[in-house]
Amino acid sequence: MSFRPQLHLAVDAMGGDYGPRSTVPASIQFLQQNPQAHITLYLHQSLTGDVDASHPSLTIKPCSSFVSMSDSPSRALRYLKDSTLAMALQSVSSGEAHACVSAGNTGAMVAIARHFWGTFTGLKRPAICKPIPTVEGGHSYMLDLGANVTATPDLLHAFALLGAAVSHCCDQVVSPRVALLNIGDEVIKGHEDVKAAAGLLESDGRLNYIGFVEGDAIYSGMADVIVCDGFAGNIALKVSEGVARMAVRQVNDTFRTSLYGQLLGQFARPVLKKWQRRFDPARYNGASFLGLNHVLVKSHGGADARGFGYALSYAQTMVQQELVPQLRQSMEGCFVS
Amino acid sequence: MSFRPQLHLAVDAMGGDYGPRSTVPASIQFLQQNPQAHITLYLHQSLTGDVDASHPSLTIKPCSSFVSMSDSPSRALRYLKDSTLAMALQSVSSGEAHACVSAGNTGAMVAIARHFWGTFTGLKRPAICKPIPTVEGGHSYMLDLGANVTATPDLLHAFALLGAAVSHCCDQVVSPRVALLNIGDEVIKGHEDVKAAAGLLESDGRLNYIGFVEGDAIYSGMADVIVCDGFAGNIALKVSEGVARMAVRQVNDTFRTSLYGQLLGQFARPVLKKWQRRFDPARYNGASFLGLNHVLVKSHGGADARGFGYALSYAQTMVQQELVPQLRQSMEGCFVS
Repeated sequence: MSFRPQLHLAVDAMGGDYGPRSTVPASIQFLQQNPQAHITLYLHQSLTGDVDASHPSLTIKPCSSFVSMSDSPSRALRYLKDSTLAMALQSVSSGEAHACVSAGNTGAMVAIARHFWGTFTGLKRPAICKPIPTVEGGHSYMLDLGANVTATPDLLHAFALLGAAVSHCCDQVVSPRVALLNIGDEVIKGHEDVKAAAGLLESDGRLNYIGFVEGDAIYSGMADVIVCDGFAGNIALKVSEGVARMAVRQVNDTFRTSLYGQLLGQFARPVLKKWQRRFDPARYNGASFLGLNHVLVKSHGGADARGFGYALSYAQTMVQQELVPQLRQSMEGCFVS
Repeated sequence: MSFRPQLHLAVDAMGGDYGPRSTVPASIQFLQQNPQAHITLYLHQSLTGDVDASHPSLTIKPCSSFVSMSDSPSRALRYLKDSTLAMALQSVSSGEAHACVSAGNTGAMVAIARHFWGTFTGLKRPAICKPIPTVEGGHSYMLDLGANVTATPDLLHAFALLGAAVSHCCDQVVSPRVALLNIGDEVIKGHEDVKAAAGLLESDGRLNYIGFVEGDAIYSGMADVIVCDGFAGNIALKVSEGVARMAVRQVNDTFRTSLYGQLLGQFARPVLKKWQRRFDPARYNGASFLGLNHVLVKSHGGADARGFGYALSYAQTMVQQELVPQLRQSMEGCFVS
């Protein structure tokens, strides 16, 4: 009888801007902190000699190809079945690993994961979702963050149900407040898809739909779930990172530009560091694909080893909380039209 | 012969969340700071008795209706020709005022301004544009920020030409770097409209097109002009405000949560205030409609008197720089298909 670890993660080592330079050290550090875990790293065969990945709980699986950021989903699906991403995903559907983590090509992840794993019954496409910190110290769930460039009203409706189920399962919110992201809170605002989705959400008795919210409301905590298409959601997320980086840089600059500020900066540094840790976008790295039959965590493409480490921890939490089986159960019959 | 002031602004006093409570004090303060200016306030007739607006350079024009935030553009255009917004806009096309400022309904502003003022020859619709501060201390021009919920590839192409002309006219940039906002920088990313627009920009020899940029690049300064549809642009702008507010609040909170921080906070306050002033979204209030034949400045709907004051100053700058005639001249023949 083979030993099965409490947590086995399949990591696509080739994804993201840094590839193995970020995924390998992050995996080793994760294993050092989690002795019960095992990681299988799916690495391109040309790199197996270059990577120093010696840890008793780490397995390297050389693969003959990898998905690049410019590969289309259809090409990835058709021609790259032996890629690091596809092999990592397949190891989850075969029962070998509990979850897959990748910082790679989002479109390819959706296509291959749907193909190997399938989505919840009746759900056409999964959504990328993550908890967004709010000003009061809580969080809202936002979806879709980039799995679907466009979304029909029906798909937005499905995402609203998924988001509400996540808020209920993870935070025990009894009647999660669900909002649609729009460019105004009046009913006449927005494009046809978002207006039609509003009608569907409004008339669905299972949802506590509170209406449209604008971009600045994402961080206000006025909704538990914020629904949008993946184009708007991805832009909202990336813009947030840009502003956060600018805020951190400007605070530091301001303390540097006067002698008084410099002097004060010496003393203020621990307080500012504390804020930066709290505000740091890397801390919130890791978004999950909701609606798939297994756990798939997408790391930010620009994540360094520390950031990728957060994505691994996020996958661990999702597996331990048994979110996918819980969600699938609560969504049973929801999407059958 | 009647005296014509150097600057005459027509202000829709009813727009925005605060209406006259913000527009009236902002106008009076602006006139105190700019003795050569004149403002005509277009106010609903029911409020003329309630508003204390005594200043020798301020004229009140009572109007019999106003455009609410829930009025559709077509209703505003058809039935609200005597509204504060329509009357203010008309006073510019009649030559009485130099520019119009409103914090009101964006869709109605577009519809009525197009009707009364017209757009540059061959340009189908105007775009909302504003300079976005970058991390290095410069700025990029971003458009459209909400005048067009969707945009065809041709319209995005027109906005790219407009944005490049603004960068050239205002900042003397010889060959402005133009980018399209997207959810990835690879050519396969995004929806069909943004991909088709990329083809048009790429093949237009007048443009220095640098490709797709993601949301976090808006603040990086890597492009002089960032082009998107009004839905994505508006969400990017509002999300930025939300994150900025959260940053300011969290910095203050962090200094408050420990005794050391509290003590330090007393000394750090002037430095933090300096940063907050620099980072404050209200400072950047005021966006212009580009492609219209006169100056129309849109204030943020949530702007208080101080914020609305920035929008008035922005209109003043646009009039003094003669941006509209310069732009119209440089765009001559550009949009004739």
